[in-house]
Amino acid sequence: MDTMPRIEQALAGAVASCEAPGCPPRLAAAIRYAVFPGGARVRPRLCLAVAAACGEPDSPLADAAAAAIELLHCASLAHDDLPCFDDAATRRSRPSLHRAFDERLAVLAGDALIVLAFQHLGRCAGSVPERLGAVLAEIGRAAGAPHGIIAGQGWECEATVPLADYQRAKTGALFVAAAGAGALAAGVDGTAWRSVGERLGEAYQVADDIRDVLATTEEMGKPNGRDAALGRPSIVAELGAAGAIRHFDRLVGAVLDSIPACPGAAALRSLMLLEARRLLPDKLTRRAA
Amino acid sequence: MDTMPRIEQALAGAVASCEAPGCPPRLAAAIRYAVFPGGARVRPRLCLAVAAACGEPDSPLADAAAAAIELLHCASLAHDDLPCFDDAATRRSRPSLHRAFDERLAVLAGDALIVLAFQHLGRCAGSVPERLGAVLAEIGRAAGAPHGIIAGQGWECEATVPLADYQRAKTGALFVAAAGAGALAAGVDGTAWRSVGERLGEAYQVADDIRDVLATTEEMGKPNGRDAALGRPSIVAELGAAGAIRHFDRLVGAVLDSIPACPGAAALRSLMLLEARRLLPDKLTRRAA
Repeated sequence: MDTMPRIEQALAGAVASCEAPGCPPRLAAAIRYAVFPGGARVRPRLCLAVAAACGEPDSPLADAAAAAIELLHCASLAHDDLPCFDDAATRRSRPSLHRAFDERLAVLAGDALIVLAFQHLGRCAGSVPERLGAVLAEIGRAAGAPHGIIAGQGWECEATVPLADYQRAKTGALFVAAAGAGALAAGVDGTAWRSVGERLGEAYQVADDIRDVLATTEEMGKPNGRDAALGRPSIVAELGAAGAIRHFDRLVGAVLDSIPACPGAAALRSLMLLEARRLLPDKLTRRAA
Repeated sequence: MDTMPRIEQALAGAVASCEAPGCPPRLAAAIRYAVFPGGARVRPRLCLAVAAACGEPDSPLADAAAAAIELLHCASLAHDDLPCFDDAATRRSRPSLHRAFDERLAVLAGDALIVLAFQHLGRCAGSVPERLGAVLAEIGRAAGAPHGIIAGQGWECEATVPLADYQRAKTGALFVAAAGAGALAAGVDGTAWRSVGERLGEAYQVADDIRDVLATTEEMGKPNGRDAALGRPSIVAELGAAGAIRHFDRLVGAVLDSIPACPGAAALRSLMLLEARRLLPDKLTRRAA
């Protein structure tokens, strides 16, 4: 049931394809640095969990979709950290990409990862080529404009920011696509699964806001307390820590309720509960008391 | 036979899909600015010419491939012009994207265009879904690492630059893909067509070097004499202007000779000769005398 080795293998295969002779060596190194070692790989795990729940526990197209979604996520982190945006010094407990290499390579590695995401998908449609277009469209929608993660980042360049649109695009879109693409890769309609992804994305955003307040910088792998320091909107500022935790629990309940009837519904529910516990461990929530 | 209206229409459709309600308006405007008005659209014209020569003059997948290649080209111009690279003030006779908007929007518009290229392809496979994977792989290879335009730009971040690798990736790759994807979209093997694209890309690079010396800044739409000013390698520095023009003519001959047997070979040859004349008009070559 543990999909992490599959995800790492799919990512390793995709990244290795960039490192063939003839690639500028620093670019190849920057691409690898942006992807490994990774974070919790929460989006690709969702994608594979949904594909398995839909009855395809070993779909190469789902593996490729999962990898594509994580590569797009890594690309967005590299570009969001750039000096012209967050100018972040650290990411995943070590120097951000543009600090470890330089700004040019951070731009190019992000670009290359976006291309790689789709290219890898094209290579892996294998025995189900008729599903490729829909999976590609699902993932593309989550990445670009008008409603994907790039559009989400685009809201940071506007004078006024509609918070719901911003969060839906910046955080929610890839969760929606992870669930939707998992279903589509398994040959199942993605509509109902998108709602599962959307709710899980909201829960993830709320957990992120809570961790920013309750977790230590060491636990986060990046500075904590950033939302308050930067005056960013946060559910904790709105509801307090304890209220935000209750809101998170309700959202997790809504995720579980929204799982459509499917061969692996029970197993998926168990997995989602484990994931909720991982996102907000008891150790952390106790600090809100 | 004039494919420009089809190309502009395919690009307009793709760009319009980014502008739905909910897109950050400045990002939507930056995406449009990066694509319209365009240059000569030489790569997408090549793609459609090859598809037509292969017997499919009206292939929606070829239209999408042509648009995807141009969108990737526009993305690369936006990112190459960034302050951390060329810091170009002008492009196509008006302010570069990051001067007209800002650096953040130039990064994001480029990112969104890369996504859009592949997304648009996924949407347009239509009646020939079994051809999508190969067309996607062909275009992906020309864009990313190890050998695509992003890798080409990556060579600018290395201490030593192998000139042939650099030019093949930076300029040649998209020409190769334009010809290869045109054939694949028409259901024909792309191998022989890639060679046509490669030679045309070389001719284009040589014409570019010649124009940099012989054309005025006004004719170029950007400052001339940049190769000499920046100490960049140039075929004109190597062979002189007249020698470079003879080299160009030989390359055009090689392009014509490499066109494989196909329904529209004769028409394609005529088109290539016209294109060669457009790249280096007599008005220009006379200045080398």
